[in-house]
Amino acid sequence: MAEKIDVDDERDPRLDDFRDLSAADRRPDRPGGRGFVIAEGTVVVRRLLRSRFPPRALLGVERRIADLEPDLAGFDVPAYVTSAETMANVVGFHLNRGVLAVADRAPQPSVREIARAANVLAVLEGVGDHENLGALFRNAAALGIGGVLLGPRCSDPLYRRSVRVSMGHVLRVPFATLAAWPSGLDVLREEGFRVAALTPHESAMPLRELGGGRVALLFGSEGPGLTEDALGAADARVRIPMAGGVDSLNVATAAAVAFYELAGRG
Amino acid sequence: MAEKIDVDDERDPRLDDFRDLSAADRRPDRPGGRGFVIAEGTVVVRRLLRSRFPPRALLGVERRIADLEPDLAGFDVPAYVTSAETMANVVGFHLNRGVLAVADRAPQPSVREIARAANVLAVLEGVGDHENLGALFRNAAALGIGGVLLGPRCSDPLYRRSVRVSMGHVLRVPFATLAAWPSGLDVLREEGFRVAALTPHESAMPLRELGGGRVALLFGSEGPGLTEDALGAADARVRIPMAGGVDSLNVATAAAVAFYELAGRG
Repeated sequence: MAEKIDVDDERDPRLDDFRDLSAADRRPDRPGGRGFVIAEGTVVVRRLLRSRFPPRALLGVERRIADLEPDLAGFDVPAYVTSAETMANVVGFHLNRGVLAVADRAPQPSVREIARAANVLAVLEGVGDHENLGALFRNAAALGIGGVLLGPRCSDPLYRRSVRVSMGHVLRVPFATLAAWPSGLDVLREEGFRVAALTPHESAMPLRELGGGRVALLFGSEGPGLTEDALGAADARVRIPMAGGVDSLNVATAAAVAFYELAGRG
Repeated sequence: MAEKIDVDDERDPRLDDFRDLSAADRRPDRPGGRGFVIAEGTVVVRRLLRSRFPPRALLGVERRIADLEPDLAGFDVPAYVTSAETMANVVGFHLNRGVLAVADRAPQPSVREIARAANVLAVLEGVGDHENLGALFRNAAALGIGGVLLGPRCSDPLYRRSVRVSMGHVLRVPFATLAAWPSGLDVLREEGFRVAALTPHESAMPLRELGGGRVALLFGSEGPGLTEDALGAADARVRIPMAGGVDSLNVATAAAVAFYELAGRG
């Protein structure tokens, strides 16, 4: 069971893992970032405790730490209890969710491991917006997608804002980096996947007409969309039929629609 | 053609329509709000100029006003040209989109008018979050939904943040308020609609199994969902099949999935 420890002094060095979270050097994707995984709020902290990421410590107000006690059974980590004010002074901003957990990173599964366990995968190119990335993971979890593969110019799903927007599902949906691009997609084909690129282009086939089997759905960033290289490496191009005059959906929303279409086929 | 007028002085009273936009009294849904429609950025200003909302004036940097000149043909409104700095001082915050337009509100169409022209409608109860509401309108426009009806406790789609998140589509997708709730849904049934309530409840039928014809999709707020009254007034209850352990999708995302499922049936 985690040990509850009351802390009054915001300068207490035991709270250093939680200090100044909004400062740039806490961004794991930037040089000097310490790379911890940060979970905010009881729902997300609970998901962290059930994930592959090993928790280091919790920090929260009395009531929130108490809410989490059943989830903390079996964990040998400190749970620092303090006031909302001290918490805000440590973290650097006011947290209305009243509890935080810090965890270490864990090794990524391999692309092949993810592929073998999945029927539908999402593959991203240039999804650099942390909120879109988090929302996409939330949608992947809700609609039963087996994993997310990160191509070039994607941001880090474990950055704090992505963790929050995903409701903690970045901690749960397996993901891995596709280092070779787009040639790394060949691993998916070897595992029996068809690679289907989502594009608003009129020449693409309507998503509904994409046949069955294992599918890796390829998504580009909002705005520029997929590069020609990525489109060229796909086995099929599919589109979500749009009403006249509307450019496109947000990338996480388009992904939800595509996940729904494919996941529901069993 | 709109008249271009150079303005140097941020105190110029001709700019009063644009002043202190982030202050609470500019919220049309609050007492004292002036109720203008505010469009930000060339894409959204362009949609405003093609909408039913009569523009009062534009304010922008030289380059953005120049971009909009073709769209301003036929409009007899002032286009105030100034520096980015003066603009920020008038508006009260820095606008990286460089142009704003202010328009008057316009009368809402009636529920019956909207229903007669639509095959699929969205009906909202308690969607109070301006960003969710804006995103839902964007999705409605992209997926060809005929209109949005606002039940109780919905926020104002014409509030600035909703206009922005919708990419201007709140100015384009017709909407009206359903004053009697839920008895106002009877108007839709008179017009041949089935009212289908979206709910994550296991007892609801999968969305895919909902038959054809005219459908009004009923959405509740994220979190509490639809009230018992609203669920009781629906002709059918439908759900988006979710993977185990995931509570639900964001309301705008769930709406996108449902719009996709129904709009694609022709």
